[in-house]
Amino acid sequence: MTQLLTSTIEMIKSLDEKAMAQARARQDRLTKPLGSLGQLEELSIQLAGIQGKSIPQIRHKVIITMASDHGVVAEGVSAYPQEVTAQMVRNFLRGGAAINVMARQIGARIVVVDMGVATKLETHPQLLSRKIARGTRNIAVGPAMTEAQAITTIETGMEIINSETARGLDIVGTGDMGIGNTTASSAIGAVMTGKPVAEVTGRGTGLSEPQLKHKVQVIEKALAVNQPLLEQPLSVLAKVGGFEIAGLVGVMLGAAAHRIPVVIDGFISGAAALIATALVPRLRDFLIAAHLSVEPGHRLMLEHLRLKPLLDLDMRLGEGTGAALGIFLAEMAARLLAEMATFGEAGVSERSEPLR
Amino acid sequence: MTQLLTSTIEMIKSLDEKAMAQARARQDRLTKPLGSLGQLEELSIQLAGIQGKSIPQIRHKVIITMASDHGVVAEGVSAYPQEVTAQMVRNFLRGGAAINVMARQIGARIVVVDMGVATKLETHPQLLSRKIARGTRNIAVGPAMTEAQAITTIETGMEIINSETARGLDIVGTGDMGIGNTTASSAIGAVMTGKPVAEVTGRGTGLSEPQLKHKVQVIEKALAVNQPLLEQPLSVLAKVGGFEIAGLVGVMLGAAAHRIPVVIDGFISGAAALIATALVPRLRDFLIAAHLSVEPGHRLMLEHLRLKPLLDLDMRLGEGTGAALGIFLAEMAARLLAEMATFGEAGVSERSEPLR
Repeated sequence: MTQLLTSTIEMIKSLDEKAMAQARARQDRLTKPLGSLGQLEELSIQLAGIQGKSIPQIRHKVIITMASDHGVVAEGVSAYPQEVTAQMVRNFLRGGAAINVMARQIGARIVVVDMGVATKLETHPQLLSRKIARGTRNIAVGPAMTEAQAITTIETGMEIINSETARGLDIVGTGDMGIGNTTASSAIGAVMTGKPVAEVTGRGTGLSEPQLKHKVQVIEKALAVNQPLLEQPLSVLAKVGGFEIAGLVGVMLGAAAHRIPVVIDGFISGAAALIATALVPRLRDFLIAAHLSVEPGHRLMLEHLRLKPLLDLDMRLGEGTGAALGIFLAEMAARLLAEMATFGEAGVSERSEPLR
Repeated sequence: MTQLLTSTIEMIKSLDEKAMAQARARQDRLTKPLGSLGQLEELSIQLAGIQGKSIPQIRHKVIITMASDHGVVAEGVSAYPQEVTAQMVRNFLRGGAAINVMARQIGARIVVVDMGVATKLETHPQLLSRKIARGTRNIAVGPAMTEAQAITTIETGMEIINSETARGLDIVGTGDMGIGNTTASSAIGAVMTGKPVAEVTGRGTGLSEPQLKHKVQVIEKALAVNQPLLEQPLSVLAKVGGFEIAGLVGVMLGAAAHRIPVVIDGFISGAAALIATALVPRLRDFLIAAHLSVEPGHRLMLEHLRLKPLLDLDMRLGEGTGAALGIFLAEMAARLLAEMATFGEAGVSERSEPLR
């Protein structure tokens, strides 16, 4: 590993137990029945532990949407042509995609990154061009990228977090765009969770039943050809991953190093989280699972990560759309903890115990 | 029934099928895989049908939080003393309760209504004083209110919606505050769903196991004493309901009459929805279930209403807190439909069908 990767990993510490205890104590004094805000209370306490503040604050919100292409599309694993990756990047830059609408409503900024789109993209003031290559190689015939590329890609994600932190950052959401990337994510999911390929593979953007069977066969072939090993997460990433997935691994590690909560989106972010937590197990505590994707392998990923999703709205869009909703809930959780009156402040009577 | 109630019920029409078909067609042209926004797509189509616009708009958002007391607290059915109802109303007016924090974040105004708080409340510019009586009577010994009071209370809710509509209203959320009101709501739930009292009764603000048993017995006694009949929803409301519940029935009916979507909160709003939909079955199409409450009877209520909750965050606070989150999602659903680019506008390729 190189200097930036090693030093970033070393910066990832445990949650701040003292801040969490203070947050929990404050939750119990707020004017509501004990525990009645449910997962929002737990979330506020996790945010306190991550930020190391008894009253966490969520003001500067960023969604990082990384785009890249996948050589495996040559095998016919997607319902959409490869050009759509670049076309959707342009859609992000013009503000017309779902993630743009969502980011506007929640007051987050979006960072769109070209991590390896096959098409040459025009320069644009809102586009970070960090193209590692014009798409990965076809994993059905060999590794997606070299290990050196995997490390460079992770470090690119870390550098992006570093510069976003410098601009002000309280929470980050992860997003992706890449035709073919559910194939790579299923391959990672199968290796890292140990589940059969068929259990972690779904219809992506909308495959038919025979197309889904073919996709499973392609992934099985990719695993047979590349022989990725659970114990070597960087190698798994290089062999069957993708540039946007590797970039998101870097975002997650970099954010945790800066004590910034990471709201992970759906299936592709889940694959990145499997690699990132295999590299640094305590990273898990910095992750917030936004939602449960329709993609069936996502549930298995979240179970493996021991993360409970906040939402289950039958979504499967990617881009960071689930993460945007999760960021909204995180901000709500933090604000409730910060702004609600305590029983004492409001002059509200506490429970009469015992009742009778 | 009186003039306002009758005329309001007559104003409630079916959803606008044409607007819904147009909204659905537009969803299918937006730059995303078909159906990939899941419940948010369905919600946008429902909003179109309710508002009668192919592109619904959610700008003016109101949460109506109705407060009242319950004579049945004399039986020892709540973990908190009755004074808390009035104390929490004052907390709402000072902006320190959970619903205030939530309303601020989603940009909604709150209408706090005293429908029947036992304590005399000071006048306040933000408080609507519509006190029907100083709390209901004890349902364990007789009816909560007269049928005339029930009708007056429903009409009060309708009048509030009428004046809010005049100020500008695109969506309304229902909320409640009332020590003892899960007892009344469980009683309504048992009658209207036909389920045993024990199945629709929960710990409310936090009862122990013996206290819960006692609460079930009190509700069973209330049903034995009052003999409410499923076929007479107004009478059920009068016999075992509450003033905030009856007020919310009026809010729901009045909103539907004006084609305004109603985001129903948790257990207490669920009880009101059972009565309101028994009076006017097609009201159901105007309701959006925000979340699934921890209160166990809530799931049975929503099943009876055939409503699928948007969220399941282990919340059980009331006040309209679940509704606030639901309003956020409704606004998001409407904005996505309105603001996303179509494939044509964005120059994004559609699916390549057949794939191979």
